[in-house]
Amino acid sequence: MSGDHGPRACVPGALAVLRAEPGLELVLVGQPAALEPELAALGAAERARVRIAAASQVVGMDEQPREVIRRKKDSSLRRALDLVASGEAAACVSSGNTGALMATAHFVLGMIEGIDRPAIISAIPATGGHTCMLDLGANLSATAEQLFQFAVMGSVVAGDLLARPRPRVGLLNIGSEDIKGHQIVKEAHQRLQASRLEYVGYVEGSDIFTGAVDVVVTDGFTGNVALKTMEGLARMIAGAIREEFTSSPLRVLGALAARPALAGLRERLDPRRYNGASMVGLAGIVIKSHGAADATAFAHALRLGVAEARNGVPSQISAQLQAQAA
Amino acid sequence: MSGDHGPRACVPGALAVLRAEPGLELVLVGQPAALEPELAALGAAERARVRIAAASQVVGMDEQPREVIRRKKDSSLRRALDLVASGEAAACVSSGNTGALMATAHFVLGMIEGIDRPAIISAIPATGGHTCMLDLGANLSATAEQLFQFAVMGSVVAGDLLARPRPRVGLLNIGSEDIKGHQIVKEAHQRLQASRLEYVGYVEGSDIFTGAVDVVVTDGFTGNVALKTMEGLARMIAGAIREEFTSSPLRVLGALAARPALAGLRERLDPRRYNGASMVGLAGIVIKSHGAADATAFAHALRLGVAEARNGVPSQISAQLQAQAA
Repeated sequence: MSGDHGPRACVPGALAVLRAEPGLELVLVGQPAALEPELAALGAAERARVRIAAASQVVGMDEQPREVIRRKKDSSLRRALDLVASGEAAACVSSGNTGALMATAHFVLGMIEGIDRPAIISAIPATGGHTCMLDLGANLSATAEQLFQFAVMGSVVAGDLLARPRPRVGLLNIGSEDIKGHQIVKEAHQRLQASRLEYVGYVEGSDIFTGAVDVVVTDGFTGNVALKTMEGLARMIAGAIREEFTSSPLRVLGALAARPALAGLRERLDPRRYNGASMVGLAGIVIKSHGAADATAFAHALRLGVAEARNGVPSQISAQLQAQAA
Repeated sequence: MSGDHGPRACVPGALAVLRAEPGLELVLVGQPAALEPELAALGAAERARVRIAAASQVVGMDEQPREVIRRKKDSSLRRALDLVASGEAAACVSSGNTGALMATAHFVLGMIEGIDRPAIISAIPATGGHTCMLDLGANLSATAEQLFQFAVMGSVVAGDLLARPRPRVGLLNIGSEDIKGHQIVKEAHQRLQASRLEYVGYVEGSDIFTGAVDVVVTDGFTGNVALKTMEGLARMIAGAIREEFTSSPLRVLGALAARPALAGLRERLDPRRYNGASMVGLAGIVIKSHGAADATAFAHALRLGVAEARNGVPSQISAQLQAQAA
């Protein structure tokens, strides 16, 4: 129900995935009066794979997580997570309030045994593919042990998403020499070196994009700053491209001649293609879609939820943790 | 003498600035045998404004700062800083080992009274201008008081570089609500709110590029990650532009037609235009040029040193600190 565009963006996005995935069943959680009209154009066979679960409340984008847990028990956000907890749904995908989603998911689903805190992970475009990065802002800080747990979870997600049997893990730091870095980062480095993960050592911010590693591990403060920095810079460069190609009639003509290349570039830079971040560590699958997601972007986030459900990410994380401890 | 390309990049870059700045006198510090040949093409009037100061040692890019201070007393890096300390030079510009430069500068020049630690600041391209950001990696962490000192120094530098009488200062955080953030960030926020600076509050990574603030303040770990993330993403996008415009003969033709726009874009994205970071807080002007800087990039860093010397940045910082305390 939430996100900047409400059901008008989410539902068409969800239905696009429904059409493409014959095995998928959708539960739309929210106010039936708002959701029903969005289903009008659906054929009977597909309509049979969609169920509406009524929830009377909506969580606002600025509401405090604690208040949401306490007072919004019949919100779409809460009800959707309840469905995951009860096993009626395999994953929850939401464009809503990130803090409220995280806190409520933590409260409703609990954690995977052996994981202290949830982390936000997303696949970031890199040269020749993607790099999975976490934590992108679920936590303000992380202990060395938590960074190790992030590395385990990142390996599982990257193994599935990037189809890598032994994902290479890097720990974000500000220099490549062993002497640099916070005490916590140094401890995590030692913990990772002693682990059975494919740990390659420290990486710097620029390595997120080179394909040198499959997983970049950092604390939620640093990860969120890096993520927002990328978003801001990509937006500025996209604006610069637009300006350079429209600043004179001759340049507009040039842009016409360069249309295929510009279209290819626009597609590569399209943030909607990278929408959907997973809240890993929870004992259930929760995908956060960007608040501003349109139908295309929401569909991408939903596909991520479908993939995680098929791959059984939480059980894989448990298994990987045990393999590390064995 | 150092940097990836040695005197062959630095000296031509320095001479380009010498030609453009009739009031400038250059002291080239290093091995005369390596430096002399680079001056061969210089006219007599300009040659009279260049002096070579001999230094027999060169600091390697991987040498430990402590060892450099102890054993490299006749290095170009050390001698150049000695010239600033003795007042024979108004600024030191180096493409050398960042850690060694910072530590030696700290040792040789000392700090401005009232400033605990040096910070690295640079002007980052933003929509419609630039944003000055610090600390980009001089320190691993910062106290609330040090973040306040960074804000004072950032205001001085932005005031000069961006020609803003009252630069707007933002504190980097991961949410715009007052409740978010580390304890240190919260304390710095209160300190800045109570200051006489033009403090606008918390900003996120994306705000570095929007022109919403003139100065972004953060600790050296976060700042360095953000900086390297920008560098990596910009490089990846530049590569993507190249690929899209060369992937077929038709696209190469399109690129020809779009040449003025592409040239404009290339210029905007050219990292050489943003070369040169200032080590503020030291009782003397020290500019770090990128190790990989070519002549064009080095000239840009040198121009920054000239500007800081003309503006008397260290005395301005002292004055601004006193004004804050008064």
